[in-house]
Amino acid sequence: MNPPDPSRLCIHTMTTKPWSLDEAVEHFSGAGIGGITVWRQHLPDDIAAAGRRIRDAGLRCVSLCRGGFFPAVRESDRGKAIDDNLRAIDQAHALGTDLIVLVCGAVPGLPLAESRRHIADGIAAVLPRAVEAGVRLAIEPLHPVYAADRSAINTMAQANDLCDQLGSPDHLGIALDVYHVWWDSDLPAQIERAAGGGRLHAFHVCDWKTEPADMLNDRGLMGEGVIDIRSIRRMVEQAGFTGAIEVEIFSDRYWAMDQHHYLGKILQACREHV
Amino acid sequence: MNPPDPSRLCIHTMTTKPWSLDEAVEHFSGAGIGGITVWRQHLPDDIAAAGRRIRDAGLRCVSLCRGGFFPAVRESDRGKAIDDNLRAIDQAHALGTDLIVLVCGAVPGLPLAESRRHIADGIAAVLPRAVEAGVRLAIEPLHPVYAADRSAINTMAQANDLCDQLGSPDHLGIALDVYHVWWDSDLPAQIERAAGGGRLHAFHVCDWKTEPADMLNDRGLMGEGVIDIRSIRRMVEQAGFTGAIEVEIFSDRYWAMDQHHYLGKILQACREHV
Repeated sequence: MNPPDPSRLCIHTMTTKPWSLDEAVEHFSGAGIGGITVWRQHLPDDIAAAGRRIRDAGLRCVSLCRGGFFPAVRESDRGKAIDDNLRAIDQAHALGTDLIVLVCGAVPGLPLAESRRHIADGIAAVLPRAVEAGVRLAIEPLHPVYAADRSAINTMAQANDLCDQLGSPDHLGIALDVYHVWWDSDLPAQIERAAGGGRLHAFHVCDWKTEPADMLNDRGLMGEGVIDIRSIRRMVEQAGFTGAIEVEIFSDRYWAMDQHHYLGKILQACREHV
Repeated sequence: MNPPDPSRLCIHTMTTKPWSLDEAVEHFSGAGIGGITVWRQHLPDDIAAAGRRIRDAGLRCVSLCRGGFFPAVRESDRGKAIDDNLRAIDQAHALGTDLIVLVCGAVPGLPLAESRRHIADGIAAVLPRAVEAGVRLAIEPLHPVYAADRSAINTMAQANDLCDQLGSPDHLGIALDVYHVWWDSDLPAQIERAAGGGRLHAFHVCDWKTEPADMLNDRGLMGEGVIDIRSIRRMVEQAGFTGAIEVEIFSDRYWAMDQHHYLGKILQACREHV
């Protein structure tokens, strides 16, 4: 399998967090990268103008990160989460992207089954607005290490089940991040299932280090860890995925580095390990 | 559901690591606890005599921890792992316990599918000796956070599949530790499956802290974390499990505490949260 052409790559603004959105747009575009995924904290007040600057620079705005975080103990807080997701849909529409990634949420102490009901109810509540805006929602299953506080949806099987349950196949799908699912022996079957349902909407790469300094912000650059990224890429592509390959890395270590130097390392890692 | 009677409890020697085996036997027995699980590093040279001291103190030796760690890059190292597991079976027999817990192993960089083959081959290689010695082997699925370096068997479903594959239902089963499986939406069905196959051999408790200082040695005392231990206990007991409730906690924090005080906290946590 050939390394992906840079035009197929997309980088998350969170990957190069020290850069402003405009800096990221300028430098990604200058490196021949095809796409950008914008994190909401990097959105300026005039979102539509930011969308135009992204397109004018020759970049595709692959997705907006992130919606979700539906579960809450108090009903009023669940209502606020729904409002926030409706806002995210409006933001995605204004930005000119047709995809929002959902980190579904979990609350320590709330039973997982209840969190899962809140997630299903929350997505169901915002789906009509997504349909209206022409925006797809992509459930990102998170590694079980985050089940207590970030997401009660922890496997591709659960994400597929939730999509089946909620219907709306054109507007609800899955974002697969190799970091979260690489360990799962059920992965090949669930990728087939997602692709067969036309719901594999995003493919994120980074690497799993055996002894991370921190479970959240010490993710590895591709090739630094244990994930056989190329073989997962082969699976998603053989299943029919033709979308962007998105580099999403949370790393205090890399955020502390000169970001131009880091961007060069990302491109090299994509050539050698993706 | 009533709290378990202390006579149904079993404590791992690793839980009170600073105590020698003889100290653990004396103090567990003095507290009215019914069982002990012995870690191999706590075994003295004369294993049979240690087994007699355990029984004389009124304790049941619930299991020996641990065998496993089958995968290795080099075939000679896989052979050494098999030899070590054969030795563990002999040790269990000498100690007078009929159960060995297997932490199956994983090697950073070795594809998971290959590790899983090594595990199946390794267990198959030692099963005849287990049958001969009247010792059961229990596969302990480990949380996916350990998939890179401790175990490539990460769900109850995988453990059940492996048991189905290898046959020998009287001598190969599963050890369920709530820490490793609490997040899994498939847990109720897989507990039923394991119990239906007569292979649910052990039940371990501790707790999952939302922000552990360390992924290995900062496990929580029951009640300190997010696991609904009582509801998992209800599932295994409704499925027919009548064995010991084993307290297995790795914690630098608790190992640094006066172990008598800690033992009191363990008993209180069992009353309130198990």
